[in-house]
Amino acid sequence: MARNVAVVGIGQTSFTRACGVSIRELAFDAFKEALDDARNLGTKEIDASIIASAPEYDKQRSPAGLIAEYLGLNPQPTFCIEAICASSTVGIRNAWALISSGLHDVVAVIGFQKMSELTSAESQERMLRGGDIVWESPFGPTMPSYYAMLAQAHINKFGTTEEQLALVRKKSSRYGATNHKAMFQKEVTVEQVLTSKVISSPLKLFDCCSNADGASCTILASDKVARKINDTPIWITGLGLASASMSLAGRDTYTSLTCARNAAQQAYKMAKIKPKEVDVAQVHDCFTIAEILAYEDLDFCPRGEGGKLIQNGETYVGGKIPVNTDGGLLSKGHPIGATGGSHVRTIVRQLRGEAGSTQVNNAEIGLVHNVGGAGIYGSVLILRR
Amino acid sequence: MARNVAVVGIGQTSFTRACGVSIRELAFDAFKEALDDARNLGTKEIDASIIASAPEYDKQRSPAGLIAEYLGLNPQPTFCIEAICASSTVGIRNAWALISSGLHDVVAVIGFQKMSELTSAESQERMLRGGDIVWESPFGPTMPSYYAMLAQAHINKFGTTEEQLALVRKKSSRYGATNHKAMFQKEVTVEQVLTSKVISSPLKLFDCCSNADGASCTILASDKVARKINDTPIWITGLGLASASMSLAGRDTYTSLTCARNAAQQAYKMAKIKPKEVDVAQVHDCFTIAEILAYEDLDFCPRGEGGKLIQNGETYVGGKIPVNTDGGLLSKGHPIGATGGSHVRTIVRQLRGEAGSTQVNNAEIGLVHNVGGAGIYGSVLILRR
Repeated sequence: MARNVAVVGIGQTSFTRACGVSIRELAFDAFKEALDDARNLGTKEIDASIIASAPEYDKQRSPAGLIAEYLGLNPQPTFCIEAICASSTVGIRNAWALISSGLHDVVAVIGFQKMSELTSAESQERMLRGGDIVWESPFGPTMPSYYAMLAQAHINKFGTTEEQLALVRKKSSRYGATNHKAMFQKEVTVEQVLTSKVISSPLKLFDCCSNADGASCTILASDKVARKINDTPIWITGLGLASASMSLAGRDTYTSLTCARNAAQQAYKMAKIKPKEVDVAQVHDCFTIAEILAYEDLDFCPRGEGGKLIQNGETYVGGKIPVNTDGGLLSKGHPIGATGGSHVRTIVRQLRGEAGSTQVNNAEIGLVHNVGGAGIYGSVLILRR
Repeated sequence: MARNVAVVGIGQTSFTRACGVSIRELAFDAFKEALDDARNLGTKEIDASIIASAPEYDKQRSPAGLIAEYLGLNPQPTFCIEAICASSTVGIRNAWALISSGLHDVVAVIGFQKMSELTSAESQERMLRGGDIVWESPFGPTMPSYYAMLAQAHINKFGTTEEQLALVRKKSSRYGATNHKAMFQKEVTVEQVLTSKVISSPLKLFDCCSNADGASCTILASDKVARKINDTPIWITGLGLASASMSLAGRDTYTSLTCARNAAQQAYKMAKIKPKEVDVAQVHDCFTIAEILAYEDLDFCPRGEGGKLIQNGETYVGGKIPVNTDGGLLSKGHPIGATGGSHVRTIVRQLRGEAGSTQVNNAEIGLVHNVGGAGIYGSVLILRR
């Protein structure tokens, strides 16, 4: 590998149901926080920006041009990257490559999504068209129904229970209550999850994350300049990215997201670590079942034992592998393009020792798991203090 | 720089008014041709794919997942890149970085656009939303009117004439007549251009390129494997990318696209060459004035003398710097996401000596100039035999 790359600045807006500002202002709020966080960095020293977002949620096309202008990032290069919900970590991977190759020294990755401009029905229509519009979407699957199918398969094959799914939300809400940028900051009981209304059986309302407005910003820098910008750079030591068929009909298994499994294996290999060496992780818990699948795809436990892992409390702070100590998507909300960057922010804070009441002791190695669509794009990053 | 990167495979569909196939089939046709061109390469040896396209022209969202599945490129990484009309060369720049950094050895960049699903009015509406939808689009500028403004400024400042603009189309049509993949293959006279209907004064119908359906594919490889895949790899020695304000109100000048000028300077510096060393170039001639601006922004002639350069025939094969020897966008048509890759294909053929009746003698260094929007994104590549 050519050069080492670190995260030197992190920022995030609150994730809300309706932000009430334009996308350029949303992006600015996350960018400003990351710029302040980087301490010793001006906009002119940012060599390039990457805008991560899924199109068609707001009316502005090609938002990179608009946002770079508003943020004072002209004439530096800018462009958009999209991998649905994995857009911002795919953007970070590309930023890593642009820096590692020597083309740039400092790159800002800004993920955003403003979902509140659409009605719920319009959002569902957009999500449908994120599947194969010829051979699959016409039959009506939605994101909840895709994940309900995965949940049912896991229940059938491994005996995972709805209570175990609910325990994921309980943990999420515990940590969400400590995160002032999360959409949901109230603790939720297993009983409340189990009795919430059925969305797509076996998933109930509280098994599902919520659409949101929000933005995140991750500033990356080469080893040449990282320490000058931030005295605690957090190094990216592993990167994995893989795909699986867009259509679920084309998948070999419904009890694993193979794109994430493949990405994890690449990332572990590149970082030269074993899964058990990870001290703290953020995973893509768009639904409770997704977190259980992530435990297994990341080899935090053997296949089929994800339900037991949460039941035994091993993914709480103090457990074997604390997961989603910021409340995850279930509590934070899920503004598609911003999500990966928000997860990275939490891991960076953990590795810097800035995580307050949710701090994992002596966290040295962190992992971010980010999935696009119902398992089309799987992205895994490993970060190190 | 970490590792050298070469183009080892090129492919392109015909650019047509209505292709009559789905986007996955369109992408397949370009990919298949590039795979055949690469001679010694199978899909399993392609480490990653990048899909370059502008959203909202067809209904499929996140086309990377769909296309990777159809092309047999799962489980390798895939994602979408967008910089409007510069999407595919920005994709190539990212592929370069992914390879140069050591993350991958072989990356396929597939650009496509299917514009025939929309009416002309719908297309205009999409293009409007590719400008600032709060502060500029509501006032009604279209792509032809943006470029008409640039043309008028050039006429006012430098005395460029409508005849000189027409000469660009005449040259384009001469070469378009030799390109069996071009939408327009008939020669056009200066008289025909000048008397075609006014679209946005001073631009007439024949000063404008046409929307199109089409796809292109560019396969890149590291120096480690390039010669095993193709015995005539064409090396990418210079890469430039820059931005300018999305809103034209924010620009310092209307007689230059500063994003392209900045990108050119970066690319020349990286390739360690002077503009006069370029043997053959493909420029983003979405309108006749755009080609004249490109001559100047690329320093093929002093500022203001682009009109004279075409008038003196210097951009024909045999002239000082042959430009758009495949007919350019004016003759080929302009399927946004595919365009940059199509230009790269022509330069690769020139540098390999495969350009037939339009071959530039002993072409060793080629340049591709690609612009997104009305000068928001400027991308320049320099290639070498």
